Amino acid sequence: RIDGDRLWDSLMEMAKIGPGVAGGNNRQTLTDDDARGRELFRRWCEEAGMSMTLDRMGNMFMRHEGSDPDLDPVYIGSHLDTQPTGGKYDGVLGVLSGLEVIRTIRDLGIATRRPIIVTNWTNEEGTRFAPAMLASGVFAGVLDEEYANSRLDAEGKSFGEELDRIGWRGEETPGDRPIHAMFEYHIEQGPILEAENKQIGVVTHGQGLWWLQVTLTGKESHTGSTPMNMRVNAGLGMARITEAVHRIAMQHQPDAVGAIGQANVYPNSRNVIPGKAVFTIDFRSPDLEKLASMRAQLEAEAPQIAQDLGLGIEIEPVGHFDPVTFDERLVGLVRNAAERLGYSHMDIVSGAGHDACWINRVAPTVMIMCPCVDGLSHNEAEEISPEWAKAGADVLLHAVLDAAEI
Amino acid sequence: RIDGDRLWDSLMEMAKIGPGVAGGNNRQTLTDDDARGRELFRRWCEEAGMSMTLDRMGNMFMRHEGSDPDLDPVYIGSHLDTQPTGGKYDGVLGVLSGLEVIRTIRDLGIATRRPIIVTNWTNEEGTRFAPAMLASGVFAGVLDEEYANSRLDAEGKSFGEELDRIGWRGEETPGDRPIHAMFEYHIEQGPILEAENKQIGVVTHGQGLWWLQVTLTGKESHTGSTPMNMRVNAGLGMARITEAVHRIAMQHQPDAVGAIGQANVYPNSRNVIPGKAVFTIDFRSPDLEKLASMRAQLEAEAPQIAQDLGLGIEIEPVGHFDPVTFDERLVGLVRNAAERLGYSHMDIVSGAGHDACWINRVAPTVMIMCPCVDGLSHNEAEEISPEWAKAGADVLLHAVLDAAEI
Ligand SMILES: NC(=O)NCCC(=O)O
Ligand SMILES: NC(=O)NCCC(=O)O
Repeated sequence: RIDGDRLWDSLMEMAKIGPGVAGGNNRQTLTDDDARGRELFRRWCEEAGMSMTLDRMGNMFMRHEGSDPDLDPVYIGSHLDTQPTGGKYDGVLGVLSGLEVIRTIRDLGIATRRPIIVTNWTNEEGTRFAPAMLASGVFAGVLDEEYANSRLDAEGKSFGEELDRIGWRGEETPGDRPIHAMFEYHIEQGPILEAENKQIGVVTHGQGLWWLQVTLTGKESHTGSTPMNMRVNAGLGMARITEAVHRIAMQHQPDAVGAIGQANVYPNSRNVIPGKAVFTIDFRSPDLEKLASMRAQLEAEAPQIAQDLGLGIEIEPVGHFDPVTFDERLVGLVRNAAERLGYSHMDIVSGAGHDACWINRVAPTVMIMCPCVDGLSHNEAEEISPEWAKAGADVLLHAVLDAAEI
Repeated sequence: RIDGDRLWDSLMEMAKIGPGVAGGNNRQTLTDDDARGRELFRRWCEEAGMSMTLDRMGNMFMRHEGSDPDLDPVYIGSHLDTQPTGGKYDGVLGVLSGLEVIRTIRDLGIATRRPIIVTNWTNEEGTRFAPAMLASGVFAGVLDEEYANSRLDAEGKSFGEELDRIGWRGEETPGDRPIHAMFEYHIEQGPILEAENKQIGVVTHGQGLWWLQVTLTGKESHTGSTPMNMRVNAGLGMARITEAVHRIAMQHQPDAVGAIGQANVYPNSRNVIPGKAVFTIDFRSPDLEKLASMRAQLEAEAPQIAQDLGLGIEIEPVGHFDPVTFDERLVGLVRNAAERLGYSHMDIVSGAGHDACWINRVAPTVMIMCPCVDGLSHNEAEEISPEWAKAGADVLLHAVLDAAEI
């Protein structure tokens, strides 16, 4: 079993880097704080005898050698970057539990035949640079490296520039490494495990997603002296599409969600009718047909809403993945490990996207989840208990040992 | 008659300070560019023999002496600050036409009994610091000086700090000066004069306004893994209130407008349900009852919308003025001047708020308007013709000469 206290201490130590304003974290990707977080993780790994390789996307591969170094390695990976107002566990738990697995097998003198590589994937969150899971997407060959480097943040800085600036670009070609199996351990970010009173979620599937960035173009004019019938109000169009997104998601219940998280009007002045609105729709479902149907319905309705108001409209997909089915054999390893260890468990579908969803395309992959309080995530108040953290890490340890062949 | 070319040249020269991105201006109040604009205006005034007094709100009073210096002066005033994406004429036309009036009567060797004072009122636009017409409001005793100094911009800087920083705070107590009459010449910012093919708007009334800042509090959570029925979505609440504002204004037609110009969701991340939304509603009407009724209806409906979604709500008035009736005698002077000069004219209600609306409370006041292309304002594409500019300035000159007693 892993050392739950040591894991918890590492989580709390990492959380000191890029603290939020309300107890959580703001350690967004490719910021100075991201670099500090990487440096700490690297030091801990090196202290545990691991060696680093960095690829051109800044993905960190920390290798623990196997007794048969030529065998394809087993990976444990997640991400150290956070939302602007994010929690201390989202992503971080999976990376530091990977480190804890290595610390534990070193303490116990266990040798695995296969090498084990603990990975920090760059820009999982997708807040600063859309889409989410950008660097694992490039690794999996789904996204283009040049496209990734050209992605801009809200200030117009590019992913590529910022990766160079913080000094974490490596030389290895992304994706150019064999993977025997990849495990990602993550908090659920939803309410199901807590409601069902289970310690472990055995993740069999993941929801698919569409991110649609909408730009509405109206006419900036005075809020006081422009008669109602002469207004071309992009903010009103955004409001109507926000309502439509909600309605479309409700019409696709169950197993479908939709919302707008990012929304901006321009020039954003109290006495100017918005002349432009830019916002991103997030639709998800574990059901490929529902996912496609929500997008299609939005793409039929939104232009009509725009036309009724005299607005120009552009809809650009800025993120997408199909629903995911994780590897059956690895799912079995996780379920067995939970069973053997006596942890309560249930099969579950991941509501969020994860690096594992991309890696699953190129190698057998699985996820393990632990509950989080109130299902709350992407919120500084995100919380888990040390016992929950440890249970999942124990399952991770045992499943990884099975895969890495003692 | 005034020199239309000289007036136009001055407008174009001023527009070089704080240029926008699309041919207009971004010379927001109390920025370095505002200071540069003030400096240029001061230099021009001093070259025309005027002397400056500054009050504690940064209001600039440029005095042209009368033959009877003890008589209460006649004022010509407007503002040099602009919207973030504003035009070259909104406010500026009125200030520089005041200067042009003085240049003209000096050229012609005309002496008025009363002094004439050309004024630049600080922070008319209200974008950086709400409310609009802040410094003329303090001058008129409607707003508190301390309140004004404490107003914060989006970055948390206060009006008082920023006025000190740019070095344009004077010593005179705001409001502590006699006013015989005040004239404000401004572009219409609406479509009526152009549609009616009139050169001059004789402004008899002004619309009243309510600015209501709404804060909705929901719960930040993950857009993917939070089931629809567990969401507390502040962005959806903002959308519904945006639609309600539009509907309420439409229900009060004619002579009523309503919109939301400033709208922000937090944390503004693609995969986070907005946990907070902050936005400002702008309701206006020339009819006091309609104005009150729109506010009352919103204050009845918005809490219901919030409650349906489980959101907390706060509604704070951040700007207000009642409908205005300008001074009958001065309105007559303007109408007569237009008539005498042979300019086509009509009576009109100001759709926008103006410094004149506040000054009207403490001294006889009137406004003159000229058309603007497509009624467009608060837009960098705001445009007027040199002929329109000159016609209004001619009327201003003649009405002011009448009031200042040749
Ligand atoms: N796990 C997580 O929050 N990933 C970010 C990508 C997503 O929005 O699902
Ligand atoms: N004239 C003008 O645009 N003033 C700003 C105050 C308002 O919004 O009416």
